Amino acid sequence: MKENIKSRLAELRAQMKTQGISAVIVPQADPHMSEYLSSHWQARRMLSGFTGSAGDLVVTLDAALLWTDSRYFLQATQQLDGTEIKLMKDGLPDTPSIAKWLVTTLRPGETVGINGMVFSTVAKEELEMQLNAHGIALNADFDPLDKIWADRPDLPSGKAFVHDLKYAGVAAKDKIAATLANAKTQMANSAFISALDEIAWVLNIRSNDVKYNPVVTSFLYLSPEGSVLFIDPAKVDDTLSAYLAAEGVKTAPYSSVKDFIKGIGENEKVLIEGARTAAGIAALLGDRAVKGSSPIAMAKACKNDVQLAGVRAAMQRDGVAMVKSLCEIQDEVAAGKPLTEMDVAEILRKYRSQSPLFFDESFGTIAGYEAHGAIVHYEADEESNSTLAPKGLLLIDSGAQYLDGTTDITRTIALSSAPTADEKRDFTLVMKGHIALGSAIFPEGTCGAQLDAIARQFLWKEGLSYLHGTGHGVGHFLNVHEGPQSIRLNYVPTPLTPGMITSNEPGLYRENIHGIRCENLVLTVPAMETEFGKFYRFETLTLCPFDLSLFDTSIMTNQEIEWLNEYHARVREALAPELEGRPLEWLERNTQPLKLHTITD
Amino acid sequence: MKENIKSRLAELRAQMKTQGISAVIVPQADPHMSEYLSSHWQARRMLSGFTGSAGDLVVTLDAALLWTDSRYFLQATQQLDGTEIKLMKDGLPDTPSIAKWLVTTLRPGETVGINGMVFSTVAKEELEMQLNAHGIALNADFDPLDKIWADRPDLPSGKAFVHDLKYAGVAAKDKIAATLANAKTQMANSAFISALDEIAWVLNIRSNDVKYNPVVTSFLYLSPEGSVLFIDPAKVDDTLSAYLAAEGVKTAPYSSVKDFIKGIGENEKVLIEGARTAAGIAALLGDRAVKGSSPIAMAKACKNDVQLAGVRAAMQRDGVAMVKSLCEIQDEVAAGKPLTEMDVAEILRKYRSQSPLFFDESFGTIAGYEAHGAIVHYEADEESNSTLAPKGLLLIDSGAQYLDGTTDITRTIALSSAPTADEKRDFTLVMKGHIALGSAIFPEGTCGAQLDAIARQFLWKEGLSYLHGTGHGVGHFLNVHEGPQSIRLNYVPTPLTPGMITSNEPGLYRENIHGIRCENLVLTVPAMETEFGKFYRFETLTLCPFDLSLFDTSIMTNQEIEWLNEYHARVREALAPELEGRPLEWLERNTQPLKLHTITD
Repeated sequence: MKENIKSRLAELRAQMKTQGISAVIVPQADPHMSEYLSSHWQARRMLSGFTGSAGDLVVTLDAALLWTDSRYFLQATQQLDGTEIKLMKDGLPDTPSIAKWLVTTLRPGETVGINGMVFSTVAKEELEMQLNAHGIALNADFDPLDKIWADRPDLPSGKAFVHDLKYAGVAAKDKIAATLANAKTQMANSAFISALDEIAWVLNIRSNDVKYNPVVTSFLYLSPEGSVLFIDPAKVDDTLSAYLAAEGVKTAPYSSVKDFIKGIGENEKVLIEGARTAAGIAALLGDRAVKGSSPIAMAKACKNDVQLAGVRAAMQRDGVAMVKSLCEIQDEVAAGKPLTEMDVAEILRKYRSQSPLFFDESFGTIAGYEAHGAIVHYEADEESNSTLAPKGLLLIDSGAQYLDGTTDITRTIALSSAPTADEKRDFTLVMKGHIALGSAIFPEGTCGAQLDAIARQFLWKEGLSYLHGTGHGVGHFLNVHEGPQSIRLNYVPTPLTPGMITSNEPGLYRENIHGIRCENLVLTVPAMETEFGKFYRFETLTLCPFDLSLFDTSIMTNQEIEWLNEYHARVREALAPELEGRPLEWLERNTQPLKLHTITD
Repeated sequence: MKENIKSRLAELRAQMKTQGISAVIVPQADPHMSEYLSSHWQARRMLSGFTGSAGDLVVTLDAALLWTDSRYFLQATQQLDGTEIKLMKDGLPDTPSIAKWLVTTLRPGETVGINGMVFSTVAKEELEMQLNAHGIALNADFDPLDKIWADRPDLPSGKAFVHDLKYAGVAAKDKIAATLANAKTQMANSAFISALDEIAWVLNIRSNDVKYNPVVTSFLYLSPEGSVLFIDPAKVDDTLSAYLAAEGVKTAPYSSVKDFIKGIGENEKVLIEGARTAAGIAALLGDRAVKGSSPIAMAKACKNDVQLAGVRAAMQRDGVAMVKSLCEIQDEVAAGKPLTEMDVAEILRKYRSQSPLFFDESFGTIAGYEAHGAIVHYEADEESNSTLAPKGLLLIDSGAQYLDGTTDITRTIALSSAPTADEKRDFTLVMKGHIALGSAIFPEGTCGAQLDAIARQFLWKEGLSYLHGTGHGVGHFLNVHEGPQSIRLNYVPTPLTPGMITSNEPGLYRENIHGIRCENLVLTVPAMETEFGKFYRFETLTLCPFDLSLFDTSIMTNQEIEWLNEYHARVREALAPELEGRPLEWLERNTQPLKLHTITD
């Protein structure tokens, strides 16, 4: 692999030289601004050997650097070792942005090359502005991959299918009408949608084009005069074809999209979202593009009652699978069996896949034992695979795609019968943040960035922190990460709105020791209305116990203990009817109420 | 007054008609983007009769509307009553922005008029973009005031003076060099400064041009080739003139600034901060303007050791004056004397002004008794002036300009010997937020918007809220409100940095009942450095007891009670040596430790 990287970088540089390019940026991106990519678009992985889900490569004629965030610092260090590629730790105060690095490294008159089809319009414009301010040019049509990537995988060609109305709740026709009505408020008469999860949602269709994300590789043009889905014909069977026709949507080949755009009428006003539309698409639209906000994102984020009923059913099912898995893992370890991290992932998959509504996992299971738990997006492979022992902490972050909902849950459990005081303290500080956020009440209009510190405050007091966000939006039988809301330090101006499903997942990672993360999915619901306006709160959707042996109640308030006890009572009530034998015993033991403090004045 | 408004609006409309203007925006602003204005620039007050410190007037040919924020909803309602001017409650979800209102009210082809000298460059550009998108034009040279404002006050002409180095800590020459070095990093070789507090700070000069703000009406051009202060010659005596010359600064008449700008060399790159430079100035600079961030704001915000020593001395002095005042107020009320809100302001001024370093108050004292306390920026006048009685709550927000520092403190006190349960509950919820923020620890890079909810969380849980910010920056013998940092719901991307002084002032306002606000000034200081980086905390600077009779300890944790007890012990230790007799007794009684809960498991 490392030899491949050397020769591939050499071939890339040969292409750069022939086209007068001094530096190229190879982002982790596709023409749909997806987070997870089909293998056809894994150019950054191919060129660097780094397999993380986030990170951009920059190659100049004499240097190569990979920017990635804190989740991947340890993994990238390992995977880049032995290559010429230098790790740039994104998000640390001393790490320059890619643009800043380029303008301080290149000289005026030089040219940076990118493929405009894998840069968002916004990102391309910002980059261009920064480069131009230093006399550096941007060539947004530099796409040498086909020349240097002989065994490049094809685009996905699996069949797409209809996501039944009994799960989706609203018909595609109605969603299209609402989308066009939204576009009209933004002074556009049509809309061009590139984001794969938005297309899947608006048309109620799914496929398995991208691992873990049941999306359909396509572009969608919506117009009152007729809508067109650009999709590989191999993906469309007769059923789907008839369904789309009935919903008022024609199909055309995926590869015909650029020609179609060129043919759109001169006076057409086509809404695009700059952050999720490729610069190459925006360039083709030219003056016909109306750069606005997504006409779909908010409607998709706020789940309807049918979806929520599905999610609640999925949560119960997922909780049952989690309890069976955790029980089996702890029993096996206690019995001295040589269980590995990869076995843990297999056990979870075994129990989840017993449901007829199970479609896939919603992301690669993270089972990080002891020091591996501190690698935030660790995924065990044959080489790293640890064997569990009756000591230390095991972090398990996993989830499923069910036809009626998507789950994402993290539990950190002790494998010893007597966790250490340090383990309990670290775990309890994380849980105090989890509970504070889970029980927060906040006024209408509050954005995630305003709540983030609620989850961090107890860690901060001890000089501890975690660098990832506290919460991400979650799709409905769709991407496990979706916008527009999020709960993180970075400011995102989307208010938390009733119907949104968001994760609540503070953590703490001690390098070479252990990692802790406690994650439930929460639903924004109305809490009360007072003279000060409307207030919202979170309803916790996920149903699975936290490890009672890891709580240090001496640093918890009675309110925190009461929150936990009430949550565990609810979990027991929901899951017990579906369990028997060992797993039922395990559930009952792990949902006992913790003792409250006695307070006297 | 109300008749005047009618005729003035009529005259304004006559001017609008002659120049083809369909709507005019009259902001609360001057050419220096000041928060407090000298009377020469009080056009919005003159035209509307509304005297609040924030609020913009919009006048069309058949309507007049005033936008102001929640602090002034009650006051504006009263002051606009009987005029044709409609109150627009800024910050509420249903209130459109001015731009939004204009584009939905005017028709394409119409023109909005503003005076570009009282709009920031940023505000003017944003307004223009929004109007133009709807086919509405902007005329930024519409300035009819001299024609319709016969008795317009002159610009301030009081003498300016040097702020002694023993208080300022760093010489003007050094500050100018640092400012130009900063400008260079922003690709500019000179800087044009409009903000009055920035000019006062960088030159170590002060005056009394604006009530409460000891600034000097002027513009400042800084250049390695020679710096020029544009100032009314009447304001400069020989001492100041000699001082400025020694620091390398020439003077020129204030009114000559526009001609000077026109004469700046074609290739000069002049740094301006778009948010604090008038659009009219930017227009004159044209391509020579480099729009960047203020080269002064961060240096001014982070106080040096000399300034901090001064502030600590000022805080002790101010605390002594506060204790004497609060003792006298409570004694007089208890004795049945007919003390009024205006008397309260007078008592505070009496004690503060006993110090030889006292220069002025730092803003108009807010003494709001019972329902008046709920009017956030209430200032008692002859008409509203309430007489205090031994019941209910009195909110006192006041501060001083001392030569060695600026203070700003709010205390809410009970005038009854037995406050009601509601009063105690409301007060304690506010204090829980005050304590949570005051004792927060947070990583390097944290901005105020990320901490704001820490102060609000306990109120939110009860469906309560306050609409103002939690904290503002405070100058050093300068404006009591200064940037760039703030602690508020709105995102401001300035990290809280060691040396910054910020207020900590959560509140709760129950219309027609009472208002509560608890405000200390806090200094950002290092807390610790761990494997997770640098962490900061707040050191509370203000020294004055909170009213012990208003705490409901049943809803407080022991940590909160301990914070309060430690604070009160520190206040007692600092102030007792400066007090005797009744005020000393009052201090000792009001700093007794509250009893902790006994917690058993």
